[in-house]
Amino acid sequence: MFDNFQKHLRSRVEISTAEMDLILSRINVRQFKKRTIIVKAGEVCRFQGYIDKGCIRMFYTDEKGHEHVVYFGFEDWWMGDISSFVTGQPADYSIEALEDTIIFFFDRDDMEWLYSKVPQLERSFRILVQGALISLQKRLVATMSSNAEVRYYQLLQRFPHIELRVAQHYLASYLGITPEALSRVKKSIIEKEKKH
Amino acid sequence: MFDNFQKHLRSRVEISTAEMDLILSRINVRQFKKRTIIVKAGEVCRFQGYIDKGCIRMFYTDEKGHEHVVYFGFEDWWMGDISSFVTGQPADYSIEALEDTIIFFFDRDDMEWLYSKVPQLERSFRILVQGALISLQKRLVATMSSNAEVRYYQLLQRFPHIELRVAQHYLASYLGITPEALSRVKKSIIEKEKKH
Repeated sequence: MFDNFQKHLRSRVEISTAEMDLILSRINVRQFKKRTIIVKAGEVCRFQGYIDKGCIRMFYTDEKGHEHVVYFGFEDWWMGDISSFVTGQPADYSIEALEDTIIFFFDRDDMEWLYSKVPQLERSFRILVQGALISLQKRLVATMSSNAEVRYYQLLQRFPHIELRVAQHYLASYLGITPEALSRVKKSIIEKEKKH
Repeated sequence: MFDNFQKHLRSRVEISTAEMDLILSRINVRQFKKRTIIVKAGEVCRFQGYIDKGCIRMFYTDEKGHEHVVYFGFEDWWMGDISSFVTGQPADYSIEALEDTIIFFFDRDDMEWLYSKVPQLERSFRILVQGALISLQKRLVATMSSNAEVRYYQLLQRFPHIELRVAQHYLASYLGITPEALSRVKKSIIEKEKKH
């Protein structure tokens, strides 16, 4: 049951069998049905979760009640409201399961304990967080400087199968456009491809 | 000369005198005149830098030649194109000194060596990168969901003295609006304050 997770950790740092046993001993496995809210904005997010199976969206709800998708997460990714996890303040974001989803949770005290026992884990998380920072920087620049068509291409490049798994209105929300505008973007891409 | 830097590190993790000596031994100090390009997009960024004095902007230049400010950095912050530093690929961003600036540089090999000798440094950097990720998440949400006035307020909240140190057109670029729109935002804020 923990095969993918072990591969995921060992792809970044060396971890002995004894250390891996320590890590696995702190996992809480939970299953969520499609559409379940896993983290609710306004409540404290006390864990980091590894997505073993399924798909989630993290979103922000503005004062007008409009939802904005910040991240999608698929198998082999981490999720959680990192700001709330780190500071203990209420979460800004909600996280919803978009499919039936299995998450391995680590709560904050267990994480700290594991960092002290398995220092390579700290390294592994520094690398992971760095990767998240890099991709968010690229996304911010794309939001500031590119049109929706380019942003949609970039999304497909990053998640080639996302169209098969995520509803159109969530993709539009991630791109910061209306579902109607997304459908125009896709039509325009198809027209261009026909001409080539 | 390294007082602020030592305080900065020790505010996050415990570091012995011997360990601190190791760290300080790997610093390269460099001074840059105002307007110097410290990192150039297209070249590999082989270091992380601690800003001891001064102020920088990191920016992206799009296909049309328009510049978009991604970050400002002041004393006691780290800078560098983290994506390029990590992957060894050419930098997406350029970094320019906005004032006469002193930077403490650590190159990649020295960083790796220090991580192995002073494991707490790894922790310190995980925490730093986490902080950068959190603030970038908040910025992305603000870009997606707030008007320019709210974004300007947030910028002032984060950097209370920024108006004294950074030119208007860079602030506008960071906010993703024209300098004329920024000046309208400021006028509107003044009008509102008069009414109260």
